[in-house]
Amino acid sequence: MTTKPQIALAMGDPAGISPELTAKALADPTIRDAAHFTVFGDRRVLEMGERHAGVSVDIEVIGDTSERNSEKTVFIDLGHLDPRTVPLGDVSLEGGRSAITNFRNAIALAKAGKVAAVTFTPFNKAAMRLAHPSYEDEVVFLNEELESDDEASEFNILPNLWNARVTSHVPISGVADLIRKDLILDKLELTHRSLKDAGIANPRIAVAGLNPHAGDGGNFGCEDAAEIEPAVKEGQARGIICDGPFPSDTVFLRAKRGDFDAVLTMYHDQGQIAMKLIGFDAGVTLLGGYPFPVCTPAHGTAYDIAGEGIADLGATRNALLLAARMANARADTVAA
Amino acid sequence: MTTKPQIALAMGDPAGISPELTAKALADPTIRDAAHFTVFGDRRVLEMGERHAGVSVDIEVIGDTSERNSEKTVFIDLGHLDPRTVPLGDVSLEGGRSAITNFRNAIALAKAGKVAAVTFTPFNKAAMRLAHPSYEDEVVFLNEELESDDEASEFNILPNLWNARVTSHVPISGVADLIRKDLILDKLELTHRSLKDAGIANPRIAVAGLNPHAGDGGNFGCEDAAEIEPAVKEGQARGIICDGPFPSDTVFLRAKRGDFDAVLTMYHDQGQIAMKLIGFDAGVTLLGGYPFPVCTPAHGTAYDIAGEGIADLGATRNALLLAARMANARADTVAA
Repeated sequence: MTTKPQIALAMGDPAGISPELTAKALADPTIRDAAHFTVFGDRRVLEMGERHAGVSVDIEVIGDTSERNSEKTVFIDLGHLDPRTVPLGDVSLEGGRSAITNFRNAIALAKAGKVAAVTFTPFNKAAMRLAHPSYEDEVVFLNEELESDDEASEFNILPNLWNARVTSHVPISGVADLIRKDLILDKLELTHRSLKDAGIANPRIAVAGLNPHAGDGGNFGCEDAAEIEPAVKEGQARGIICDGPFPSDTVFLRAKRGDFDAVLTMYHDQGQIAMKLIGFDAGVTLLGGYPFPVCTPAHGTAYDIAGEGIADLGATRNALLLAARMANARADTVAA
Repeated sequence: MTTKPQIALAMGDPAGISPELTAKALADPTIRDAAHFTVFGDRRVLEMGERHAGVSVDIEVIGDTSERNSEKTVFIDLGHLDPRTVPLGDVSLEGGRSAITNFRNAIALAKAGKVAAVTFTPFNKAAMRLAHPSYEDEVVFLNEELESDDEASEFNILPNLWNARVTSHVPISGVADLIRKDLILDKLELTHRSLKDAGIANPRIAVAGLNPHAGDGGNFGCEDAAEIEPAVKEGQARGIICDGPFPSDTVFLRAKRGDFDAVLTMYHDQGQIAMKLIGFDAGVTLLGGYPFPVCTPAHGTAYDIAGEGIADLGATRNALLLAARMANARADTVAA
């Protein structure tokens, strides 16, 4: 039995900084120490990443998951992409196809219970769509692959602050109708559980209001008092450390200074505006609500600096270490 | 004829930092140099502010606006509040009543065309409501006093960034229905004009989208393409330097680094979340859309530090200097 968690890592889009980040991550002692990774990609693309990064990766290369040794970090060479066919900095069908294949393999390994978390370096959404026209986003693809209609949740995570949201890609006109006690409570539970899995023993969650001034005592909308407040009270009754609804224009000031570990927001931009201002570059995206966590840096493929060797590993490191912590917390549920 | 603009300054709530800020402002050479102020308050409250601030204010005290000398900064001693009757740090009817009276006098002077701008140090809303039950906020009170039903607009202003909004104290459920081309265009025009009045010769305005990812090409709502984009195009046709709609979760990152002078947001928290994170303490609130600008620091009465002498003059200075610039821009429309 190994004491390290098992994590799948899918190499992202080959035309941006993903090869460089993958190489840097696999050469990083802290990351290597935290978990055994099963990396999916083409060895030639990783070699390109090593050249871009100026690092050399010590990794066992195998051809198939059947040869996998769960006591080691291994690279599964799918041999599906010659990097010379994909120019740096351009969206391509081939690049998207290789990333889709890497991601699909990583998901399958997690679905089979062989790894406890899935991670990936940045994908290019346009390339993914060229390769797989129904690719709307990672959540839709995961649901397809897992034959699931789970309502997954995206968390945005900075080193000391999480943001979870009750609704996400919903027009503003449709948000208020979805702000209902039960849904808020579900998301509150998921947030609480995810924070605990990430190693925060007693997470403190602030719940944002929906309306200006959290409704201003009913002057600006009823949902804060009628739906959010009862959800917070019920969450407290279930032992979740939470409070709110707080006016959303000051709750992040409090969270930023350390009053809370997470803010549960009611709609997409309520949290995204704040999180991107507080520190986009170090951010991690976690997809929660699946049988395993899925973690990736929040930033994109950075085509503008592809190949320059200057990509910052910070967010990728945070994503992989978060996956390792969460995988550890679930270790007893996963076969080694 | 004087070359300095005439500005009314109403002393705010006496139980917080308003007396200290008023004293510090009137002792500040930059502020005194920028305009002739007509200050409304009780001389004894100003004296208390001088003690709190540790400054001495050189100002001519008169009893009535009829004795006003427009070549000077003068203090109109309304003699309506003995500060010993109002404990520091407490909401009081007397405090609210004095602030209401100061504000009413300042508005009346502007309405009579004797000053070109109104300013005030922070009010306490609860005290204002004790004194004047229909006091919802400054806009409602101004509309009452001016017998106006103008749709005034609140601007939030940081040293290098303005935020204007199309809707304000509206429940989220009602926002989308108000996002219409004509209203957006009105606000765009007002923003453009106000920025110019404030001395920004060629203001660059970013217009935020309403929906996540500014609608994502119609996937998340129709208003971005159907209402906001045509308003931006029409604004451009009228000579306004504007662009958008931009996704609201990144537009403030661009604005913060200097790409724009102002962001026009679609609803209250879209701008407030960002502006408060970027720099609440130095912020100024401008009420635009009246015949004269109304400027005040964005922060509140800070009861917790009342009397300590540590209140930061920054936002108040910015508010008074903005009023002076805007008053200058309108100088030709105001009788000296």
